[in-house]
Amino acid sequence: MSTEPHRLTATEALQAFENGSLTIEDYAKSILKHIEARDAIVKAWAYLDPAQVLEQARALDSVPKGERGPLHGVAVAIKDVIYTKGMPTQFNSPIYANDQPEVDGASVIMLHKAGALILGKSRTTEFAATTDGPGTTNPHGTSRTPGGSSSGSAAAVADFQAPLGLGTQTGGSMIRPGSFNGVYAIKPTWNSVSREGQKIYSINLDTLGWYARSIEDLELLGSVFGIEDDEAPQPPKAGVKGLKFAFCKSMVWDEAGPGTRNAMQKGMELLKAHGADVEEITLPHDFDKLPDWHTCILSGDGRTSFRADYQASKDKMAAFLVEHVENVQNYTRKDYLEAFDGISALRPKWDAIAEKYAAVVIPSVPDEAPQGMHTGNPVFNSWTTALHIPVVNVPGFQGENGMPVGLTLAAPRYADQALLAVAKEVGKVWEKEGGWISKL
Amino acid sequence: MSTEPHRLTATEALQAFENGSLTIEDYAKSILKHIEARDAIVKAWAYLDPAQVLEQARALDSVPKGERGPLHGVAVAIKDVIYTKGMPTQFNSPIYANDQPEVDGASVIMLHKAGALILGKSRTTEFAATTDGPGTTNPHGTSRTPGGSSSGSAAAVADFQAPLGLGTQTGGSMIRPGSFNGVYAIKPTWNSVSREGQKIYSINLDTLGWYARSIEDLELLGSVFGIEDDEAPQPPKAGVKGLKFAFCKSMVWDEAGPGTRNAMQKGMELLKAHGADVEEITLPHDFDKLPDWHTCILSGDGRTSFRADYQASKDKMAAFLVEHVENVQNYTRKDYLEAFDGISALRPKWDAIAEKYAAVVIPSVPDEAPQGMHTGNPVFNSWTTALHIPVVNVPGFQGENGMPVGLTLAAPRYADQALLAVAKEVGKVWEKEGGWISKL
Repeated sequence: MSTEPHRLTATEALQAFENGSLTIEDYAKSILKHIEARDAIVKAWAYLDPAQVLEQARALDSVPKGERGPLHGVAVAIKDVIYTKGMPTQFNSPIYANDQPEVDGASVIMLHKAGALILGKSRTTEFAATTDGPGTTNPHGTSRTPGGSSSGSAAAVADFQAPLGLGTQTGGSMIRPGSFNGVYAIKPTWNSVSREGQKIYSINLDTLGWYARSIEDLELLGSVFGIEDDEAPQPPKAGVKGLKFAFCKSMVWDEAGPGTRNAMQKGMELLKAHGADVEEITLPHDFDKLPDWHTCILSGDGRTSFRADYQASKDKMAAFLVEHVENVQNYTRKDYLEAFDGISALRPKWDAIAEKYAAVVIPSVPDEAPQGMHTGNPVFNSWTTALHIPVVNVPGFQGENGMPVGLTLAAPRYADQALLAVAKEVGKVWEKEGGWISKL
Repeated sequence: MSTEPHRLTATEALQAFENGSLTIEDYAKSILKHIEARDAIVKAWAYLDPAQVLEQARALDSVPKGERGPLHGVAVAIKDVIYTKGMPTQFNSPIYANDQPEVDGASVIMLHKAGALILGKSRTTEFAATTDGPGTTNPHGTSRTPGGSSSGSAAAVADFQAPLGLGTQTGGSMIRPGSFNGVYAIKPTWNSVSREGQKIYSINLDTLGWYARSIEDLELLGSVFGIEDDEAPQPPKAGVKGLKFAFCKSMVWDEAGPGTRNAMQKGMELLKAHGADVEEITLPHDFDKLPDWHTCILSGDGRTSFRADYQASKDKMAAFLVEHVENVQNYTRKDYLEAFDGISALRPKWDAIAEKYAAVVIPSVPDEAPQGMHTGNPVFNSWTTALHIPVVNVPGFQGENGMPVGLTLAAPRYADQALLAVAKEVGKVWEKEGGWISKL
């Protein structure tokens, strides 16, 4: 084969295993060799044991082809906020340094059953809750952040260290790293995939998501996790031609820098040029409260979620988390319920707006990944997380320094499959003509 | 002391440890001796190791009094759907037989930090989701169910095998066993206490709760878990005199049998006789959909939650859970969202109604505990669980066969402390004059 195995997408690797041109062991060796060469620079991993990976690979090779699952042999990075048997789960918290409870999160159980090769645990910010980077760098520009909190999974997928990576989003922890690293990312409808075995920050917001370098791969993993609309979507037959898109700058447009302003403009022009029907929309004013309400829910839920660790080990927690438990922002329960009920009332309103379009296009980030290790601003993501809606980052554009910039495609709740089908067509256009090409 | 140690409430045991009249080791021995005598009949425990309990007790005795937490030495039963280090966590599922991941649920971390003596794991129905009893009997009449799914914790607290027991409620799994066993039970406001480390059935409904034989003890554990209203309530100064109560038979009143009809009538008369202001209320008709909506949410959430275990071990799961994953009821995502958004819209409406009263009184159960091991009907509880509201079971009445019958006191969300303060006064009246007295 001409392509080095570690550069294969999940779908491509499955084909190579199926047609016998590649063993899972050789695939694993290629990935491990690449990680060995790159790890000192990218630092995507909190835990990875090459011997354990090779042992898994050999065991997977020994399974007869008729007994293999839909992800058999495909390498996956697991964000280190999800429990894994046989590997530590540390949450980037000194409280849990080297901790290894022998339990698998629901997503990991499903991955194992599907035959996935679990590579290791990818780095996260503390409890997937803070904005202090875990040391991981952006593979496209190593002085820059890969974003967070799913830093390691996004960087690993971008850097060809894994074709698939699990992450989570509570504010912007899937989509922001997706945009910063130039990879596809989905945060599906809230609670469409089990969050069992995934550390809780906000029970109302936390959502499992995943990264890949193609929409096909996002779909593949979605089917393993049970992503299923009421009706299977009809894939668009003529690319984006004739599809109707809404461009929504959103209530936080003032935060957009030149990279994102260019992406929104160019993204719209490209869809129009390819025959799509595009209009700009403004959400009703009651949506303007979403960013503040999201902040309030985050604080109230964190007050509950971090209380146990706070009581036992307050001195080992980031100040930001201690502040949640101590409610230094002085949110009342009444404030919390106003936010909770207010967001709840907006969800069906969003669905009614979004269902008129193939997708609603919104910014993924303020701009390309900033310099340094602060993980960046989730302002364009948090309000969509609050709405529980499926969102997909589609890469293709670039910022003033040549770093990737993506845009978000959004849909009504439980239109995840339909959204991915549309994103596939949009991605073909934007990846080819958007202006950004990965040099990795 | 005249009272045998195992009969002490948590508050009484703490006093005895504090004044030096009882060591924690002697307390533990008394409890263990009583459990030994009763376990073959009541069968409350999924796991209990006397040597481990005594070891904990001796370690707790060695802690200087100045360094003790608010529950120091108090014995607690943990429902076996919550992870515990050093003890198996089996969910009454053959998939997890003898499984012991070394991790503590958030509630268990807080109990340990407060100095509690973790007795063992109490029996539950499979994944706290089915209505097939786990073999536990009702200590007041051993041919009858103790209810479920928190069967073991409720029976253990009623039978003086533990002063405190953790449970969970998704439909009626705290309040129904509370009523059937004649003990106090609280299901606090949803998400007011962390559910970390507690197996997920319905992420929207599952709520940690606890049992005790006094309201003081419910309050004690509530303070450890961080139960906190916006303003600390003013305890009633003259019992129930002058307090305003609503009696709400609810949309499922047709399900009430003679035990509950008597309890509602007598409960009202007693409050009136003690000077309370009592009125009957009927909820607006849009609340009538709550039972069906609850069923729809349960099915949709179970479809997500049990998918991983289904994929890996379908043959070891109850048919009821398999049916959730396979969606045999053919709920659409649209049905689910209608239920989800419908319930969301009713929550603030409930709060506006309930805040006019000291408490809203509703049935806890259709009647006294039925014969046999089916855990009974949660119909009076499920709609309150859907609303996320705090509910407390107050015992005091009896059915036609002399078994206990309780009533539920309910309040607006996050009025948990206020509700407990009112329940304390109501409990004094109903326990003394309601007609039921425990023979245990």
